[in-house]
Amino acid sequence: MHHQFVPQQFYRTIGTHPIALTVQNGDSVSIPCVDAHGVDGNDQSVTAPGNPMSGPIAVAGLSIGDVLSVTFEHLEPLRGHGWSYPTLAGNVVDPEYIAAVPYAPGSTVPKEYWDLDRTAGIVRSRGTHGMVVTAPYKPMVGCFGVAPARGEAISTATSGPHGGNMDVRFFGTGCTIYLPVAVDGGLFFIGDAHLVQGCGEIGGTGVESAMQVDVRLSKAPMKSISWPRAEDATALYTIGNARPLDQALQHATSEMHRLLMECGADATSAAVIMSQLIEYHIGNVFDPAFTIVAKIAKSILIQHGLRSTFRD
Amino acid sequence: MHHQFVPQQFYRTIGTHPIALTVQNGDSVSIPCVDAHGVDGNDQSVTAPGNPMSGPIAVAGLSIGDVLSVTFEHLEPLRGHGWSYPTLAGNVVDPEYIAAVPYAPGSTVPKEYWDLDRTAGIVRSRGTHGMVVTAPYKPMVGCFGVAPARGEAISTATSGPHGGNMDVRFFGTGCTIYLPVAVDGGLFFIGDAHLVQGCGEIGGTGVESAMQVDVRLSKAPMKSISWPRAEDATALYTIGNARPLDQALQHATSEMHRLLMECGADATSAAVIMSQLIEYHIGNVFDPAFTIVAKIAKSILIQHGLRSTFRD
Amino acid sequence: MHHQFVPQQFYRTIGTHPIALTVQNGDSVSIPCVDAHGVDGNDQSVTAPGNPMSGPIAVAGLSIGDVLSVTFEHLEPLRGHGWSYPTLAGNVVDPEYIAAVPYAPGSTVPKEYWDLDRTAGIVRSRGTHGMVVTAPYKPMVGCFGVAPARGEAISTATSGPHGGNMDVRFFGTGCTIYLPVAVDGGLFFIGDAHLVQGCGEIGGTGVESAMQVDVRLSKAPMKSISWPRAEDATALYTIGNARPLDQALQHATSEMHRLLMECGADATSAAVIMSQLIEYHIGNVFDPAFTIVAKIAKSILIQHGLRSTFRD
Amino acid sequence: MHHQFVPQQFYRTIGTHPIALTVQNGDSVSIPCVDAHGVDGNDQSVTAPGNPMSGPIAVAGLSIGDVLSVTFEHLEPLRGHGWSYPTLAGNVVDPEYIAAVPYAPGSTVPKEYWDLDRTAGIVRSRGTHGMVVTAPYKPMVGCFGVAPARGEAISTATSGPHGGNMDVRFFGTGCTIYLPVAVDGGLFFIGDAHLVQGCGEIGGTGVESAMQVDVRLSKAPMKSISWPRAEDATALYTIGNARPLDQALQHATSEMHRLLMECGADATSAAVIMSQLIEYHIGNVFDPAFTIVAKIAKSILIQHGLRSTFRD
Repeated sequence: MHHQFVPQQFYRTIGTHPIALTVQNGDSVSIPCVDAHGVDGNDQSVTAPGNPMSGPIAVAGLSIGDVLSVTFEHLEPLRGHGWSYPTLAGNVVDPEYIAAVPYAPGSTVPKEYWDLDRTAGIVRSRGTHGMVVTAPYKPMVGCFGVAPARGEAISTATSGPHGGNMDVRFFGTGCTIYLPVAVDGGLFFIGDAHLVQGCGEIGGTGVESAMQVDVRLSKAPMKSISWPRAEDATALYTIGNARPLDQALQHATSEMHRLLMECGADATSAAVIMSQLIEYHIGNVFDPAFTIVAKIAKSILIQHGLRSTFRD
Repeated sequence: MHHQFVPQQFYRTIGTHPIALTVQNGDSVSIPCVDAHGVDGNDQSVTAPGNPMSGPIAVAGLSIGDVLSVTFEHLEPLRGHGWSYPTLAGNVVDPEYIAAVPYAPGSTVPKEYWDLDRTAGIVRSRGTHGMVVTAPYKPMVGCFGVAPARGEAISTATSGPHGGNMDVRFFGTGCTIYLPVAVDGGLFFIGDAHLVQGCGEIGGTGVESAMQVDVRLSKAPMKSISWPRAEDATALYTIGNARPLDQALQHATSEMHRLLMECGADATSAAVIMSQLIEYHIGNVFDPAFTIVAKIAKSILIQHGLRSTFRD
Repeated sequence: MHHQFVPQQFYRTIGTHPIALTVQNGDSVSIPCVDAHGVDGNDQSVTAPGNPMSGPIAVAGLSIGDVLSVTFEHLEPLRGHGWSYPTLAGNVVDPEYIAAVPYAPGSTVPKEYWDLDRTAGIVRSRGTHGMVVTAPYKPMVGCFGVAPARGEAISTATSGPHGGNMDVRFFGTGCTIYLPVAVDGGLFFIGDAHLVQGCGEIGGTGVESAMQVDVRLSKAPMKSISWPRAEDATALYTIGNARPLDQALQHATSEMHRLLMECGADATSAAVIMSQLIEYHIGNVFDPAFTIVAKIAKSILIQHGLRSTFRD
Repeated sequence: MHHQFVPQQFYRTIGTHPIALTVQNGDSVSIPCVDAHGVDGNDQSVTAPGNPMSGPIAVAGLSIGDVLSVTFEHLEPLRGHGWSYPTLAGNVVDPEYIAAVPYAPGSTVPKEYWDLDRTAGIVRSRGTHGMVVTAPYKPMVGCFGVAPARGEAISTATSGPHGGNMDVRFFGTGCTIYLPVAVDGGLFFIGDAHLVQGCGEIGGTGVESAMQVDVRLSKAPMKSISWPRAEDATALYTIGNARPLDQALQHATSEMHRLLMECGADATSAAVIMSQLIEYHIGNVFDPAFTIVAKIAKSILIQHGLRSTFRD
C-alpha cells in the first residue's frame, strides 16, 4: 500500500515522539521534507531551523532487535533551487589555516543560492559569493533514523547507532538503509535533503532544498545489527558514527566483519577479504559525531559464493 | 636519460642518508624494491624486515622549497606471488570486538600466500588461512618519500609531510606524486610494494611483493607545498598524514584549498567547490600516522576555467 | 527552605521530563540516589541499571541563558558498602594489551564488593577478585546535569554541555558546579554516586553506592556559559565533555579563557596566566564522551586582582 | 664520578649522533642547556632555534633492552630571565574560538620576558603584553630522551617511546625518569628548560631559559619498558606520548598495569588499584604528539605490600 505523509509537526530530535503514521510491513510512503532551515517547497518557513524531521512513522509488527529496511525509491525536489554556505567548517582545516577560510567560524555566513537545471542534470550557483559553480544534480538525504534506545531523544545535528545526520552522499534513489530497531514500530524520521553534496559536508551544508522522498519501509531479514548498514545495486555497506573518525572507522569495520560472517564467510576469510578489498567513504565530518562508511562490492561477494543481498 | 638503480643498502628510515644515485631533472629510473620483510624477487632475504627502502636518489638542482614530481611510469612485480596477514589490526575494530578477530593483536600471525595470475588480471590466495580469495591485480607502492627537514630520519612504518608509509591504493602506474623538498636534491626513497591492497591496509599488509618501479623524477612547477599532492589522468589530490584521522583530514583539506587557489580560484570559490564536489579517500590506518586523501576531479577544474594539471 | 526529595520515578536520560519538585532560588534539597545499577540503600533493586537519576528538580525563576549553581553541601552514603568491576575498560589500554587485562571487554565481569570503614576513613575491597585493596573514603557524584536544549534527552551514560556522566572525582562535598540552563527552571537530575573513584573511571566504575546528596540550588551570577564550570575552596574550574580528549580539552580551555575575562583579565593576560599556571584534570574516559577539567587556583586570581569566586 | 659536559654542537633531533661524552654507570654530569631558541645564559644565540639539545651522552655498559635511569639532581638557571609567548596554541581552543585568542595561530607572536626573583621564589612577567603576571619558580626540563630504535632521528619538537618534548611540569629537581634503551650506551640528550610552565604548555612555551641540569645516569633495575616511567619522592609514573590524547592515555595506562605487576600485583589487583586510585597528569598538548602521565602514589604501593621504588 502507498501512503502520503502529511507532516503536522516537525522534530529536531530523533526520539520516541507520538506516532504520526503507522504503515504495514512493505508499504511505501511519500514524505515531504522541509529544508535544513525549516523552509518548504513554496519558500515558506514552516518550522524552526536545525534539520527538522518529518515523522515519526511506525511500521506495524517491528519489535526491538528487528532491523528496519528503508529503500529510497525516489527523491523529488519540491522547489527549483537550494542554498549552501560558501565557507569551510572550522574543524576541517588546520587551526593555523582558519584565518584563511572565507567567513571565519563563528561569524555570520551569507547564503549562496543554486538553481536546479533538470535538463542539464546540474545545479548551478548564482555566483553571489565567488564564481558561478556547477555541480551534477545528485539528490540525497542527509539525516534520517529511528528512535534510539533507553528513551533518548538525539539532536538531528548529530548521529549514532540510530542513524541521524550522517550526510552520506550516495543515500539517494535506489539505496536501501538498514537501521537497528530500538522501540516497537521503529519510528522512522527523515529530513535535510540536498540537491548535491561533497563528501564530509565540509562547509556545513550541501545544496539544501525541500524534497519529497518516497520510501519503502519493511522488516529486513537481519537481526540485531549494531550499526546502520546499507545496500545499493553494486555494494553492501556498514556505517559507523562517532568522533574521532578513528572510532567511526572502528565501528564500521567491526560491523563489516560481522556482516561478512552473516553472508557466510568464516572469521578469517572475512578478514582476508576486507584487508584487500574494503573501501571506505567519508560521510559527515561537521557534526559532533562523524561518519565513516565501509564498502564491499557485491561482485566480490558473489565471486566468493557469499550472500550478496538482504533485499527481498 | 634512464637509469637502472642497483641497491647496495636498504634503509628503514627516510632521512638524509648518503646519496646512492644522482639523476638529472626529468630522468627516469628503474628501481628494484624488496618486499616489506626485505625479501627480493628470488625469495631471498636480503635485508631486515620493516619496509626497507631503495634509495636515496638525488635530483640535481632541486633545492629546499622546491617540489619533487615523481611519476610512476610502470610497476613490474619481481616474483609471481605475494603474502598478507589474515587478520585485522587492533586499532581498526572496536576494543570490545578484538577478541572476535582471527589472530589477536600481539599474537603471531601466519602468512597467507597469494599467486599472481597475469592472464586473468587477478591475485589469488592459496586458502591456507580461510577460503581461496581472489582480488583484482592492482599493483601499487605503499611507502615512498623524500628526506624530511631538520635532519630527521623517520621510520618507514609511519608517514608525515615528507610522504612515507601512506598506503594509498591508487599510487600505481600513471600516478604522479608531488613531494615537498626539504634538503637539496630531495633524496627520494621507495619500497613496500603491493600486488593489491584494500583501503586502509587494515590487516597491516597488502599483498606484499618485490617489485620494480619505474619512476620519472623532475622538478614540479609548484613552490613550497605543505603536504604531498598527487595527480593522475582524472583528478588532483592532496594528502594529509597524521593521527587521528580528523587531523589528517584537516591537513589534506587545507592543502586542497591552497591548491585550488594556485589553480586560479579565489578563496570563496575554492570553498564552494570543495563543499559540494570534494571526495575523500582513506590511506593507511594501521601506522602510527594515518592518511587521508582529498580529491577534486580534473573535469571540475576544467569546467570552471581553472588549472587542472601540474604535469609538463 | 530545605526540601526532602522523594523519587517516584528514575530516569536514564537527562531531558525535559515532568518536574518532580520545584524549589525556590537558594533552597536546599536532600536527594536520595540509587546506585548505578538502580539498587538503593537497603540493597533493593528499585529501577533498571544504567545510571538512573533522581529528579528533575526545577528552580523557580530560572530562565534559558541563566546559570544554575549546584552546591554539594553533604554526601551521605545510604549503605555501608559499594561495588566495582575488577577490570579496565577496552578503550583505556592499547589494543595489543587488551588480552592481558582481566575480564576482557565484552565478557561478563563479576562485582567486587567494598566496605566503608568510617572510623578509618577508608573503603576496603573484600578481596574476592584480587587482593584486599584499601582506598581513602572520598564520596563524589558521577552523573548530574540539567535538561539540554532543543528537547534532547541524553543518555546518562554520556556527557555534554548539560553535564551528565562526567565522573570528576572532586565533585563531592563543598564543590559548587555551574550548569548552563537550557529550559525554564533548569531541571536538575542527579545519581551515580561513588565512595571513591580513580581519575578517568577507567574500570568503568567507581565504588558504586546509594547515597543521599544534599544540594543547594540557586541562580548563579553568570550569564550564558558554554560549558559547565565549578568552584571549590581553592580553585575555579571549567569542564569540557567530548571525544576525543583533545576536543574536550579545547572546550575546557576556551571556556577557561572566557571565564578569566569575566574575572577581569584582558584576553592577552588571560592567555599568559593560563600558559604558565593552568592545571588539567581528567574525568570520565569510559563514556562515549570524555571529560577534561581545566583549573586555575583562586590564589592566582586574588594575587592578580581578579575576581575569584562566583559564590554569593 | 662527576663530569662537566661542554656542548660542542647542538642537535634538533634525538638520534644516533656521534657520542659527545661517555660516562660510567652511576656517574653524574652537569649539562648546560641553551633555551628553546638556542640562546645561552649570556643572551648569546649559539645555535638555531627549535629545542636544541645538549648531548649525546653514552653510559658505558648500557645495552638494548636496558633501562636508563636519569635523576635530576639539581636545576640551575644560567640567566635571571626567561620568555614566553603571550598566546594560546590553535589546537588547544575550539576552532570557533581561535579568532578570540591574542596573536592568532600563524601570525607573529612577540615575546614576553619574565624575571626570576629567587628571594621571593617567583618569576614575574614584565607586563609588556598584558598585565604583570607572577608565577611560582618551578624549574623543569621540557625535552630529553634517548636515541630511538631502527636508526630514527626524531625532531625535538615531538615525543615518543624514546622521550622527547614531553613538557611535564614536575620533571624537575628530585625526579627520576626511566627511559627504554634502544641503542648501546643509550645516548642521552637534554634541553628546553623552563622556569615555570602550566600543564600542557598550551601557549607553546613555558618561561624559556638557559639552564644547567645536573643529572645522575645509571642502569635501572628494570627490563624492556615500552614507555618512559618516572619516580619522585611520592609516586611512580608512566608516560604515554601520542596523538590524540586518547592514545597517549592508552599507552600510559597499559604501562602502569605492567609496572604494577612488576611491583608484585597480580593482573586483577593491578586493575582494581588503578580503577580507584590512579591519577592522570597532562604534559605537552602543543606538539605533534601529546603526553599523558599516569600516577600511583607510593603510599598506596607500600600499603598493599608492593614494591614502591626502582631507585637504588
